[in-house]
Amino acid sequence: MSDAAEPRTVTAAVLLIGDEILSGRTKDANLGFIATFLGDIGIQVREARVVSDERDRIADAVNALRGAYDYVFTTGGIGPTHDDITADSVAYAFGVPIGPHPEAMEILTLHYAETGGEFTQARKRMARIPEGATLIPNSVSKAPGFQLDNVFVMAGIPIIVQVMMDALSDRLEGGAKMTSRTIDCFVGESAIAEALGEVQSRYPKVGIGSYPFYRDNQFGTSLVLRSVDSSKLDEAFAETIALADKAGGKPVERAAT
Amino acid sequence: MSDAAEPRTVTAAVLLIGDEILSGRTKDANLGFIATFLGDIGIQVREARVVSDERDRIADAVNALRGAYDYVFTTGGIGPTHDDITADSVAYAFGVPIGPHPEAMEILTLHYAETGGEFTQARKRMARIPEGATLIPNSVSKAPGFQLDNVFVMAGIPIIVQVMMDALSDRLEGGAKMTSRTIDCFVGESAIAEALGEVQSRYPKVGIGSYPFYRDNQFGTSLVLRSVDSSKLDEAFAETIALADKAGGKPVERAAT
Repeated sequence: MSDAAEPRTVTAAVLLIGDEILSGRTKDANLGFIATFLGDIGIQVREARVVSDERDRIADAVNALRGAYDYVFTTGGIGPTHDDITADSVAYAFGVPIGPHPEAMEILTLHYAETGGEFTQARKRMARIPEGATLIPNSVSKAPGFQLDNVFVMAGIPIIVQVMMDALSDRLEGGAKMTSRTIDCFVGESAIAEALGEVQSRYPKVGIGSYPFYRDNQFGTSLVLRSVDSSKLDEAFAETIALADKAGGKPVERAAT
Repeated sequence: MSDAAEPRTVTAAVLLIGDEILSGRTKDANLGFIATFLGDIGIQVREARVVSDERDRIADAVNALRGAYDYVFTTGGIGPTHDDITADSVAYAFGVPIGPHPEAMEILTLHYAETGGEFTQARKRMARIPEGATLIPNSVSKAPGFQLDNVFVMAGIPIIVQVMMDALSDRLEGGAKMTSRTIDCFVGESAIAEALGEVQSRYPKVGIGSYPFYRDNQFGTSLVLRSVDSSKLDEAFAETIALADKAGGKPVERAAT
C-alpha cells in the first residue's frame, strides 16, 4: 500500500464539563465510551480535558481543542439549572449570539405537553442554542444537544451521551481505522524494555505501548500494539509475544472487548 | 469571619499521560484518588487533562497548567520502555537538561542488587531526572518520581501513585478546606431548577451543583453543596433539602464517603 493511498488520520478531543469529576466524587463514564465509539469508526481521540463549570475555562478549552483536532465532543452542563452554562460558554467561545431555538422549543413544548409537566422558565433554558448550531436529538429525555462547526455538545448522563453519539454519527467522517492487539504478560516491563524498543524501531507504523500493572500481588505488563496496517500489526505482534515468552512472562493475548 | 482572615484558595491540575486512557481501553483510576487526597488537605483540583505519549503534547500541557494552577500532578510515562517519555518531556517543557540523578542511580543500583536483577540500560532510563528536581520516593517498586518547581511527576500504576502522594504530601501547602454535603432526590432537575437558583443566589459562598442521574429506570438529581464556610453550608443545605422535599423528590442526604 503506497502512502498516497492511505486514509488520513482523523482526530478528536473530548471535553468533560463539571465540578463533580474534579472533586473526585464522580467517576467519569463518558470518555471511555466516546473513545471506543469513535475508534470503531476510524476517529482517534488524542486528548481529553476536564474543566469546571466556569465560562472562561470552558470557552478556553473549546477554542484550544477545536483548533487542534478535527472534532470536539463535550459532555455535561446543558440542563436546566443555574450551573448549566455550557451552551452559553460555547456561544461565547465562538463569538456568536445564543437564544431560544425554534425546533428545540417545539420538541420541549411537545414533550411537556405529553408528560403533563409545566414548560417553566428553567426548562426553557434547555432550548437556548447558539446561533448557527444544528440540534443533536436526545431520544431519552428530549432536551437536545447541538453541533456548532466541529464541536458536538452533549449532556452528561451516560445513557444520553450514548443515544446522542448514535444520533450524530452519520455527520462524522472517519479516517484510517486503527486495529489493536494486546498481550498480557507476568514480567516487569524493564525485563523486556530493550527487546521491545528494538521491535518498535523495526515497525515504525505500529505503535507499541507498554503498560505496567499490579494485580494478585504480582507486577506484569500489558503490551498494546496498534496500527492501521493489519499485516504489519500481526508481524510485530508475533515478535512481541515471542520476546515476552523468552523473558519468562507467560504471555497471553487478551481477548478483544 | 472577615474576608481577610479566610485562608486562600489553593488550586491544582492533574495531567494523565498515556495513550491507553484515550483509546478507551483503560479506565483511569488516578484522577479520583488524587482529587480526593488533595481535597482532604485543602487543595482543589480545578482542571484535568489526558494527553498521549508525545513530547510536544506533554510539554504544552505541563506549561499551560503550571502557569495556571498552584500545583500540577502528572501520572504515567516514567518507566523503562521506549514510550516512557514523561521525564524528557517535562525537562523540555522547563528548558532544563536531563541526565542520571545520583540518588536515583543509587536507589535503583541497590534495588537490583537486592532483587538479583540486572541494572540494564533500559532500567537506567528510570534514573534520568531533569536538573533541579527533587525525588519522590516510591516504596512499592523503587523507581522514583520527581518534583520540579510546582510540578509533581508520578508513575501511572495506582498503587504507586498512592504511595507517592503520601510521600510528597508534606511538601504541599493546603488552603481553605472545602466541605460538602450531598442530597439525592428522585425528581428531575428541571422541577427544582428555579427554586435552586434562588437558594444559590442567596448563598454566594456556597457552590451548589446539580447533577442529573438515571438509575433503576428513574431520573433523579444529586445536589452537591460545597463551601469553606460550614455554617453557611448547613443553612443552604437545610433550604435545599426543603425545596427538594416540597417538589416531591423524597430527598435523602448521601452519607459522606
